[in-house]
Amino acid sequence: MTNSQTSKKQERRPDDLPATAWAVLGLLSFPGERTGYELKKWADSSLRFFYWSPAISQIYAELRRLEELGYAGSRRSGPEEARAKRRYAITPRGRAALARWAADTGESGPPVLKHSLLLRVWLGHLADPDRLRELVAEHAERTLGELAQVRAAQEQSRDVPQWAFPELVLKWSERQHLAELELARALLADLGGV
Amino acid sequence: MTNSQTSKKQERRPDDLPATAWAVLGLLSFPGERTGYELKKWADSSLRFFYWSPAISQIYAELRRLEELGYAGSRRSGPEEARAKRRYAITPRGRAALARWAADTGESGPPVLKHSLLLRVWLGHLADPDRLRELVAEHAERTLGELAQVRAAQEQSRDVPQWAFPELVLKWSERQHLAELELARALLADLGGV
Repeated sequence: MTNSQTSKKQERRPDDLPATAWAVLGLLSFPGERTGYELKKWADSSLRFFYWSPAISQIYAELRRLEELGYAGSRRSGPEEARAKRRYAITPRGRAALARWAADTGESGPPVLKHSLLLRVWLGHLADPDRLRELVAEHAERTLGELAQVRAAQEQSRDVPQWAFPELVLKWSERQHLAELELARALLADLGGV
Repeated sequence: MTNSQTSKKQERRPDDLPATAWAVLGLLSFPGERTGYELKKWADSSLRFFYWSPAISQIYAELRRLEELGYAGSRRSGPEEARAKRRYAITPRGRAALARWAADTGESGPPVLKHSLLLRVWLGHLADPDRLRELVAEHAERTLGELAQVRAAQEQSRDVPQWAFPELVLKWSERQHLAELELARALLADLGGV
């Protein structure tokens, strides 16, 4: 593990980080060491459904920041691997900071929703009715596809005790996608598209 | 109405605007002239439920941008009003640009959801179980409060023909809040908080 230098300035408010930094530290808080690529793959089958779909460059930027703060460490694989890889793990200090953040007594804040399809429907007086129904139908199809991905992720995490909370969140995501599908179908019916 | 000068540069790609600009132009696309404050009030009982909760400063910044592009005009009230007010309206050019955007044959893009409560639950292995259930219960309460606001907005727009699409979207918002409430209650049950 690398021991990064941490400046006084960083030490003053090390916990004042964006939520994306906590999300990456969260990925590292589960057992095991992971490469940036593995973290990206895992975020795509968990965080993506309810919070954040990170670019690989964002993952690496957050890992750099976490290493600078001493919240994560990394090591390069040795000559036994054909292609050298850098694997990351949380440090005790990072785990303590993450626990403080998770135990934060403040509000967790309302969910943020940006539903551009609904913005289009809201402006329906400017739209072609057929095109509008088409967009809603496409959204229902896309939601069905996402639901299949949530269910595939559930298959992978089922009955692993350390993954109990992620599994519970996937259950929420499954229900949330089913609700989104129902909402789209009701909207289509309201638009006269049945 | 003010006739703003539009530079060649702006004219080159005038439709390449952020969604918040289209949202404000959308508010102006309904009949009538409105002050920035009135637009803010209306956004709070419509756009806020599915897309955007604007600060009044953001509304004014977008109005400035739209006037510069010639998509909106404004006039100051005369001496007959005790306090001078500036009222905004869409221009024919603005209406045409908005219609182009709304008719855009491209995808409307998936909804963006950032649900920080679920991020907390996902990191449940680091949390106090009682605190976690408390956060979920608070979210259910907050959702109930939001639902009441959606229903209050519905009362105001009911049976006004020009508000048919906003009314339809409020119906979607009502169902969406009911679904969010169900999801929170099921999550609470899963967390053993029944």
